[in-house]
Amino acid sequence: MTDTQPTTPQPRGPVDHGVRNQIVEAATEHFSLYGYEKTTVSDLAKAIGFSKAYVYKFFDSKQAIGEVICCNCLNQMRQAVDEAVAGADSASERLRRLFGTLAEAGSRLFFQDRKLYAIAVVACEEQWASARAYDAHMQQLILQIVREGRESGEFERKTPLDETAHAIYLVMKPYLDPLQLQHNLDFVEVAPAQLSSLILRSLAP
Amino acid sequence: MTDTQPTTPQPRGPVDHGVRNQIVEAATEHFSLYGYEKTTVSDLAKAIGFSKAYVYKFFDSKQAIGEVICCNCLNQMRQAVDEAVAGADSASERLRRLFGTLAEAGSRLFFQDRKLYAIAVVACEEQWASARAYDAHMQQLILQIVREGRESGEFERKTPLDETAHAIYLVMKPYLDPLQLQHNLDFVEVAPAQLSSLILRSLAP
Repeated sequence: MTDTQPTTPQPRGPVDHGVRNQIVEAATEHFSLYGYEKTTVSDLAKAIGFSKAYVYKFFDSKQAIGEVICCNCLNQMRQAVDEAVAGADSASERLRRLFGTLAEAGSRLFFQDRKLYAIAVVACEEQWASARAYDAHMQQLILQIVREGRESGEFERKTPLDETAHAIYLVMKPYLDPLQLQHNLDFVEVAPAQLSSLILRSLAP
Repeated sequence: MTDTQPTTPQPRGPVDHGVRNQIVEAATEHFSLYGYEKTTVSDLAKAIGFSKAYVYKFFDSKQAIGEVICCNCLNQMRQAVDEAVAGADSASERLRRLFGTLAEAGSRLFFQDRKLYAIAVVACEEQWASARAYDAHMQQLILQIVREGRESGEFERKTPLDETAHAIYLVMKPYLDPLQLQHNLDFVEVAPAQLSSLILRSLAP
């Protein structure tokens, strides 16, 4: 788990970039109608009016296309979380917002676009680079907030920082990880608030 | 979710009881070799040398047989947890043992008997009575330990008891629920200790 960056090859020029976007857009629509598992590269090629071989010039595999879509989805969720956290003026509030926003963004994707959500589930299950990067970003963000809270005197400083941040990550994981969130939707209304309170009590100096 | 007791009909006499046991034993072996989903009532009947109609005299469906097996599995786990908790002499230690034992018992079942584990997963997914009863028992046990810790002065008493116990249940759920535990096996070595510490810090008076 050293590489947390998506490994999809970068476009080679503006024309390539346009074609890649066209493929990704068609694929997003196709996957969200028919599901990732059931769509083949031939289906996609046919939908855009390209040959299968031409699509393969731009993407090595169906997964490579799925990676870009999944990256886009997870980036949107990541951005929502980052923005919510940036607007808070204490470490406690940042932790609350982090938890609330990631559960909300994840369940919104689940209810609004079940088929795209299914791609994120596959990405987590198979540990795609985009899913690993999302997970690593959230772990980093938790660590940073706990560190800031310690520096400002808001949080206790007796426990090992890494271990404490990791324990908090474990508490959030069922709501952060699309694979697990789908089994926790019954709790998504109450869990972020209840668990944030529990975490913050555990962090009291 | 009012009924948390398994609804499998009770045996009517010693002979019936013997036949039921024979069916359950054969089914346990069959499921653990070929999996729950892939085994039919006909397969089971053939394996014991009974007619399919005779098996149906004792069990309404394949699920009814699965329920008994699942009940046996979950009861073993529940017993392991109850024994571990009973041997501890403080509420903190009871919480630690509860968490440690349920994660250990669950992952042992996963690694030792994957096909039986799969039945427990189906039971959770479909909310069978056995799975609901197991879950309810653990929630009750958490509530009881928190209450005892409050009474003995070990734990804080400022937060609402029900909410605090529920938050602790949510922290344990990914390791308690077979459906989720299978996605958390990477953490099963460290999570019970790290999360118990976090929970106990949150309960400090």
